[in-house]
Amino acid sequence: MKTVVWQSLSEAQQNSVLERPAITEGANITAAVSSVITQVQTDGDAALKALTAKFDNVVLDDIRVSPDAIAEAADRLSDTMKDALQAAYNNISTFHQAQRPQPIRVETQPGVVCEQVTRPINAVGLYIPGGSAPLPSTVLMLGVPAKIAGCKRAILCSPPPIADEILYVAQLCGIEEVYQLGGAQAVAAMAYGTESIAKVDKIFGPGNAYVTEAKRQVSNDFRGAAIDMPAGPSEVLVIADSSADPDFIAADLLSQAEHGPDSQVVLVTPDFALADRVADAIQTQLQQLSRADIARQALGASILIVADSIEACVAISNRYGPEHLIVQTEDPRALLPELDNAGSIFLGLWSPESVGDYASGTNHVLPTYGYTRTYSSLGLADFSKRMTVQELSKDGLLAIAPVVETIADAEGLDAHKRAVTLRVEKLKELL
Amino acid sequence: MKTVVWQSLSEAQQNSVLERPAITEGANITAAVSSVITQVQTDGDAALKALTAKFDNVVLDDIRVSPDAIAEAADRLSDTMKDALQAAYNNISTFHQAQRPQPIRVETQPGVVCEQVTRPINAVGLYIPGGSAPLPSTVLMLGVPAKIAGCKRAILCSPPPIADEILYVAQLCGIEEVYQLGGAQAVAAMAYGTESIAKVDKIFGPGNAYVTEAKRQVSNDFRGAAIDMPAGPSEVLVIADSSADPDFIAADLLSQAEHGPDSQVVLVTPDFALADRVADAIQTQLQQLSRADIARQALGASILIVADSIEACVAISNRYGPEHLIVQTEDPRALLPELDNAGSIFLGLWSPESVGDYASGTNHVLPTYGYTRTYSSLGLADFSKRMTVQELSKDGLLAIAPVVETIADAEGLDAHKRAVTLRVEKLKELL
Ligand SMILES: [Zn+2]
Ligand SMILES: [Zn+2]
Repeated sequence: MKTVVWQSLSEAQQNSVLERPAITEGANITAAVSSVITQVQTDGDAALKALTAKFDNVVLDDIRVSPDAIAEAADRLSDTMKDALQAAYNNISTFHQAQRPQPIRVETQPGVVCEQVTRPINAVGLYIPGGSAPLPSTVLMLGVPAKIAGCKRAILCSPPPIADEILYVAQLCGIEEVYQLGGAQAVAAMAYGTESIAKVDKIFGPGNAYVTEAKRQVSNDFRGAAIDMPAGPSEVLVIADSSADPDFIAADLLSQAEHGPDSQVVLVTPDFALADRVADAIQTQLQQLSRADIARQALGASILIVADSIEACVAISNRYGPEHLIVQTEDPRALLPELDNAGSIFLGLWSPESVGDYASGTNHVLPTYGYTRTYSSLGLADFSKRMTVQELSKDGLLAIAPVVETIADAEGLDAHKRAVTLRVEKLKELL
Repeated sequence: MKTVVWQSLSEAQQNSVLERPAITEGANITAAVSSVITQVQTDGDAALKALTAKFDNVVLDDIRVSPDAIAEAADRLSDTMKDALQAAYNNISTFHQAQRPQPIRVETQPGVVCEQVTRPINAVGLYIPGGSAPLPSTVLMLGVPAKIAGCKRAILCSPPPIADEILYVAQLCGIEEVYQLGGAQAVAAMAYGTESIAKVDKIFGPGNAYVTEAKRQVSNDFRGAAIDMPAGPSEVLVIADSSADPDFIAADLLSQAEHGPDSQVVLVTPDFALADRVADAIQTQLQQLSRADIARQALGASILIVADSIEACVAISNRYGPEHLIVQTEDPRALLPELDNAGSIFLGLWSPESVGDYASGTNHVLPTYGYTRTYSSLGLADFSKRMTVQELSKDGLLAIAPVVETIADAEGLDAHKRAVTLRVEKLKELL
């Protein structure tokens, strides 16, 4: 890991330190994904089976996992595992239930009532990546808000074989439709539908470069599906002062680094000595990790920044806009009002990132890659949409009519004006 | 306008009736926009001036409108116009202020506090189309929520010459940066910045095919900017029963039709006779409109649907997912709980669409083209982002540690587990 002294850098060097590596996927991924999508649109289930045989080396009899197979998964899990997943489920439910919006109703002027109502998105598709280890936590992060929002239909796709932990959480979340599908073909099936899978309205969840590209392509097609948010490599930024524990910081940076070789890991501190101690602690702890190779690659591109003051550290963090922001300072809560552009914030010594990844209750699906400037931590709002309503009384319309007529006139929209004038004339006849 | 009897149609015919026309922009728009964006990225202000000379036939001395010029616009407007715009401003402010979110704070288990905080998006760009008539109402719909959300910087672009009504509303909304720029070049300037225009984080507002394509392109580039929502032709669907007034319905359908030749206009009713009377009223009223030619083109593709019952009408509306939904029935409010997939809903005889377009308080920037299934009426939330926060006490961490360790283990993420275990060990030493 490289250590830099912020104030000694030029503006251009500072930009370069905080610059994220470009994601260069290349035309081959774009074309490969586009071809998979076309195959699924054309050949439906047959394409899904052929693509699963090709990419996952699995010959599927049934694309869908049977209700019995979902129910049996629980029998093969330990009670410890089931209890842990249930405890995480409970906390995530509690926090997402607290996000339920109040309906809004305002009389903006006498007789003019404006309302905002929220409705669940009807059908949602949840993508859970495969790989060497299962990701039941991601099922919790997508399935719990889908259930609480009231989505009528939530389906789950994950490449075969689907781990028992995933099936168990699907059952906890009331997800009955589970499909053994991964990659761009899963995204295409959810976005466009096939004989056995009805299309969904919106697709959620992380994935590899093919999944990400497929989500991008279907979200750019109005016949496809909306998506949760743009994807990028996972990131953490730690703000720490001399009150922090270098071992804790090293452990948190390594948690992030083990996610993948492209993970971004940043420490910002006003304390040069702390930066040194963290660098040492990382080397020590690295040796005990099973995923040390991955972490080492991520750390290669990572950086320890020494700044003038805690205020300067906050400014750097707000400029970088990290997915995860850990604050280990004397009084972390005092900094909260100044913190901006972060996905999820972890305050104090006893709030490691892994708590939020799994069990505190917050969602671990977060904007990355600088998208924290405009996108939000995944929440109930992402599984819902807001509609507005207005209802005018006769008197309300009479009072507002001149305003509408004047502006419609200025905008040259006769029929808009007449829709009001006609009603006013009829009302005056009635009087 | 064509009248169809819903029950007499096959499923395929029903789909085809509700199908929206494909937007076939063609590769030429994509390439033209891409070239404009590259020119602005490369040559900055010089490109903006050259492109404005080419496309708007205006030679710009200053791209930015001076504060004096903005202030002087008010002097040239009538008091009637200023009062109308101020009245609309007040109602829109009232309704959007009511959308201010409450901060959320929950202790999901003892010692584990989870919070959701909302922050304004820092810099937003508002695009206001030009054309034969000014659109001050769109400035209200974008400028008011930007101001209430607390965006630190809101800038406005509109092609020259900018009408006094637009400058006046910009001033009402506290927008100090106004640029005489239209088309894809305006979008590129906002997304990437130039010498004289600092880049923004998110771009809002309607526009022609070039603007729409430019918004799409910059939103697909992580160095670009986020956008409000995908665009499509404007739409209205009216649900009416025999209690409705055919003149009012005709006026509302024509309001929509005059927006543009591609406007979608649909009436759904269980009353065949009403459909006939509406068709007649449209012909009568059409003759009095200045934009009759445009409206006539839109009506050519529009449709009157006769269904079995009001429940069937509601189901058709939910399936179509209209931008504007007008309900003129005996008891419109009774239908509200069943209404879904609509941008904005207008209840009853005295709530014409033009009231929501201008002055009731609701936002007129709404999802179109079926995006109502997943996107929301523009509101305060679109000018903000949600961040989550967690803070654990020592006891909170001790209690949740086994849950996190168990799940991290299952996911094969050692460092995640160790970030917790390490803290637990230190805590036990302290005891
Ligand atoms: Zn993590
Ligand atoms: Zn309108």
